[in-house]
Amino acid sequence: MPGVPPARYAFLGPEGTFTEAALRQVPAAEHGDHVPCATVGAALDLVRAGDVAAAMVPIENSVEGGVSATLDALSAGDPLVVVREVLVPITFVLAARPGTGLDGVRVVSSHAHAQAQCRGWLSENLPHATYLPALSTAAAAAGLTAPAGHDGALGYDAALCAPIAAHRYGLEVLAEHVEDNPGAVTRFVLVGRPAPPPPRTGADKTTLLVHLADDHAGALLELLEQFATRGVNLTRIESRPRGDALGQYAFSIDCEGHVEDERVAEALIGLHRTSPFVRYLGSYPRADGRPTEVTTSTTDGAFTAARAWVSRLREGRS
Amino acid sequence: MPGVPPARYAFLGPEGTFTEAALRQVPAAEHGDHVPCATVGAALDLVRAGDVAAAMVPIENSVEGGVSATLDALSAGDPLVVVREVLVPITFVLAARPGTGLDGVRVVSSHAHAQAQCRGWLSENLPHATYLPALSTAAAAAGLTAPAGHDGALGYDAALCAPIAAHRYGLEVLAEHVEDNPGAVTRFVLVGRPAPPPPRTGADKTTLLVHLADDHAGALLELLEQFATRGVNLTRIESRPRGDALGQYAFSIDCEGHVEDERVAEALIGLHRTSPFVRYLGSYPRADGRPTEVTTSTTDGAFTAARAWVSRLREGRS
Amino acid sequence: MPGVPPARYAFLGPEGTFTEAALRQVPAAEHGDHVPCATVGAALDLVRAGDVAAAMVPIENSVEGGVSATLDALSAGDPLVVVREVLVPITFVLAARPGTGLDGVRVVSSHAHAQAQCRGWLSENLPHATYLPALSTAAAAAGLTAPAGHDGALGYDAALCAPIAAHRYGLEVLAEHVEDNPGAVTRFVLVGRPAPPPPRTGADKTTLLVHLADDHAGALLELLEQFATRGVNLTRIESRPRGDALGQYAFSIDCEGHVEDERVAEALIGLHRTSPFVRYLGSYPRADGRPTEVTTSTTDGAFTAARAWVSRLREGRS
Amino acid sequence: MPGVPPARYAFLGPEGTFTEAALRQVPAAEHGDHVPCATVGAALDLVRAGDVAAAMVPIENSVEGGVSATLDALSAGDPLVVVREVLVPITFVLAARPGTGLDGVRVVSSHAHAQAQCRGWLSENLPHATYLPALSTAAAAAGLTAPAGHDGALGYDAALCAPIAAHRYGLEVLAEHVEDNPGAVTRFVLVGRPAPPPPRTGADKTTLLVHLADDHAGALLELLEQFATRGVNLTRIESRPRGDALGQYAFSIDCEGHVEDERVAEALIGLHRTSPFVRYLGSYPRADGRPTEVTTSTTDGAFTAARAWVSRLREGRS
Repeated sequence: MPGVPPARYAFLGPEGTFTEAALRQVPAAEHGDHVPCATVGAALDLVRAGDVAAAMVPIENSVEGGVSATLDALSAGDPLVVVREVLVPITFVLAARPGTGLDGVRVVSSHAHAQAQCRGWLSENLPHATYLPALSTAAAAAGLTAPAGHDGALGYDAALCAPIAAHRYGLEVLAEHVEDNPGAVTRFVLVGRPAPPPPRTGADKTTLLVHLADDHAGALLELLEQFATRGVNLTRIESRPRGDALGQYAFSIDCEGHVEDERVAEALIGLHRTSPFVRYLGSYPRADGRPTEVTTSTTDGAFTAARAWVSRLREGRS
Repeated sequence: MPGVPPARYAFLGPEGTFTEAALRQVPAAEHGDHVPCATVGAALDLVRAGDVAAAMVPIENSVEGGVSATLDALSAGDPLVVVREVLVPITFVLAARPGTGLDGVRVVSSHAHAQAQCRGWLSENLPHATYLPALSTAAAAAGLTAPAGHDGALGYDAALCAPIAAHRYGLEVLAEHVEDNPGAVTRFVLVGRPAPPPPRTGADKTTLLVHLADDHAGALLELLEQFATRGVNLTRIESRPRGDALGQYAFSIDCEGHVEDERVAEALIGLHRTSPFVRYLGSYPRADGRPTEVTTSTTDGAFTAARAWVSRLREGRS
Repeated sequence: MPGVPPARYAFLGPEGTFTEAALRQVPAAEHGDHVPCATVGAALDLVRAGDVAAAMVPIENSVEGGVSATLDALSAGDPLVVVREVLVPITFVLAARPGTGLDGVRVVSSHAHAQAQCRGWLSENLPHATYLPALSTAAAAAGLTAPAGHDGALGYDAALCAPIAAHRYGLEVLAEHVEDNPGAVTRFVLVGRPAPPPPRTGADKTTLLVHLADDHAGALLELLEQFATRGVNLTRIESRPRGDALGQYAFSIDCEGHVEDERVAEALIGLHRTSPFVRYLGSYPRADGRPTEVTTSTTDGAFTAARAWVSRLREGRS
Repeated sequence: MPGVPPARYAFLGPEGTFTEAALRQVPAAEHGDHVPCATVGAALDLVRAGDVAAAMVPIENSVEGGVSATLDALSAGDPLVVVREVLVPITFVLAARPGTGLDGVRVVSSHAHAQAQCRGWLSENLPHATYLPALSTAAAAAGLTAPAGHDGALGYDAALCAPIAAHRYGLEVLAEHVEDNPGAVTRFVLVGRPAPPPPRTGADKTTLLVHLADDHAGALLELLEQFATRGVNLTRIESRPRGDALGQYAFSIDCEGHVEDERVAEALIGLHRTSPFVRYLGSYPRADGRPTEVTTSTTDGAFTAARAWVSRLREGRS
């Protein structure tokens, strides 16, 4: 359509990371510009500023270290919402400049989280190699293509990275599937500015950030009961330290269902009443498409019928 | 006002019981007819039939045995609602025909529950007297005025009854305050046909009958959590066997607050969704006038603000 | 065995009641004396005094009105324990002197609870008959055999009673199965002095009386959680008003399992710690023989293994 | 004492980190060797191998990124126990080679977590500076003392590090207290091989790792109730992803009290029974010395009395 520029999308860069792979799964982003950002916060700030339509960032179990940063960046600043989730299988290669053999690898570079996920393979296959931290797996790969220093040294010989990065930078793959846990998956989310959520599909999730009222045993129990009494299951709960003081926590929560579901709405109302702070971070379809199991007592119809009954009581009909 | 006959009121009779004393506390009933009924069920049926404006019946800790009957009669049949509660201090006298002395009392008659409440006094002061059941304390008193049988025998010599009954039937009081627990109070309720509840006073109660979903440990916990998550306190809970099978219970519940209170409405909605049967039996001012303590998270304002917030989320504003 | 007199057993009399029928089900009582008592309290006092080996009394859903009396009599005074439970199917006959026809019945006598259970039949078949209260169903039956007063009048024409009572007093059965709920069952318990409980069978119950700490919503929730966290299910829970003040409750509870079960013992320990008063009223085999379903986390073995683990931790082994 | 060599202690190195500062607070470690380790796992492996007496590692809110690594390293491998906790106030300096001015700083290096904690200061004071990741704050400081490359370039101009590191490496402090949250504290733990815990002080903590039974809402509620029913408060709870699959969590928990406390022991027994996996990670005095508030229902005496009562019940005494 002439005159309508394709949308721009930010992502936690650089190019060649698993996050870019996640962004490539979004059909709407196919023809748009992809803007790599150095940090999750920078990517989200581009969204807030209106410079991009949305940003793809890791939210759970990431190899690039973006998880805590994502949770924290979504918690502070102007509100944003998750509009889509994407799952990416995680697998690493050990890549080097063409001509380097496995026995020539003395120093390996990668993001710290990737190194942690390949620790078993490294200690078995490269027991004498040392580790050099990099800003990302892709940065480690890209660095191998940089001109060497005056002494001819790169500082490291190989990178743990995504297959896409080895390919992009013309590196040779010395070993595939070097991760200790084959089958690992990282969850990414596409984050946009506040907007009506995507329509309900019956297989939805809602993401929240909730501060606890005060102490932990009782307050966390009460928080969970706000979900349980409405029949809303949680699929993820993570505590995050809050502010400076030790012992103050926020909880990052994904629950089943959509803000348009009555049971989810009532749980949100309960949280809003009883928590010092609650931030809604979006309702969106589940990437795995698994429908929410709803009992007869928690359907929209059950809520609607119960509300109509209370209205009748108030009017003296019963 | 010419042409408008004063209202009629039923009560668990006969005349001279504590229930009639309760009815006399109701200003609106002052100039109306008072219709004594043989059973609670009969009194409530007069209400259902429109023959009386309302009925006064005992609901808690009664000496006339009406409690279970009241709970059961409110549970079955067409719905009725409590519109007022009345507290009556309970004290008994031992009354006899003029001329009878305490040492002449060989048989004492009264309602079984009254006899139970004076058991200590009787065993101490009339250790050899036997007990004859009567339909009510007042019936026992009234019986003393009946003409004796052909053999000159009444069947009993004295009655345990309310002071009002001794006075009404011209009996002599042999002993006052013969109850074992001085200070006992019985709670009565004025029951009418479904109608909008009396206005909120901030010191209200709501009465409910709720069937449990299935088993008891878990189901009762869940029932109680429907109140707890909305900050609604219970002031009375009584289990009632339900139907034929042992082990099936209904719960008769009084909670603080009024059906117009948002927190009570939401608890009712939760019960309606999760219980196989719930019957609303009215919201009405507390007889003791004690205001409900409401925390900031359970005011109407907290609910209204939370609902407005969810509406904003659904519209994409936050 | 010469010199060993057979044991004596008390029961809530008089003879011819369902309670006597319950006692007849106890093999050990077959050759002993059966001592009818006027009240549950009197029967239990014979046990406390050592005059009888045990007493049979109704505890749930009784037609003779013994339930509240039993719960209260077990709660006060020296401790006693339930050693056996017995179930008796409840069915009533309308019995009269030989020669009386159904159309000659103007006044029906029975215990108030029996009358309540036959109300439907009476209103349909004897709509004009009035009701005269009796101390028991059997007393109503027995009264029909008494010589009439000087005026030839008995005071009533028929009795609602157990089939056994009609038979015993030579009455004619005018109608059988006149109860409104066919299939009703009453539960009786055999109560003895404190003694080691009968051996575990895997299908046992334990009966308790527990006072609530203070308010009801929270305190009752906490009480129930003492059972729930140990995987102990309740089969009966009944609130009983406590003392004089309205709003103070004790709870009469039957739970699955035996005091020798570790999970029951730990729940009892929790109640003892957190309740102002808890009375143990015995562990005994279930009359219905239904085995308790125990999950792997609540077997004795699970408790023993967990305790051994904690002991090892304390010793620095793990 | 001749012949007895002073103990050796490992810590998450290198020298000059906040972890070393924590180790210096331990009196017993004063005269022992301090062995810096590259990772938390390496430090704990030295403990497991018996090469050192204990290891100091960060466990909460750390600037060196050791928290998740510590929780994970304590969860896997041979069991270890925390024997002491230490709190260290966290403050950063921006340090450079003598002669470097603030306006000469183009690249800043530090551990990623330290950089995150000074982000506000950096964007305000060094808006154009870029960031280079380092293995630790101390490594960033130490690197400034290394000989420059052939081109005279270090790769970065200044380090965000602990004051102790600037001092140790002879650096010039360009700015003090550059952290965004003054008053932050990091919690460290001294970890040893399994041994009887230090004696109870009345101000103790116990650290645990617990896997959830299955789903999250219900299972986490049940886990928390194992603590709540015994009156044990939590001071920290953190979810940790478990294994490969998304949505499987372990919880790292600190609770008040000592394994020798009866209430803690019973909570542990409950967790052992109901959780698929629970690891005890030690009982030890709280660094802040705050005594645990114990209600009368959760003292050791309350448990002992309750157990004695159950024993009496089993013997038929009551």
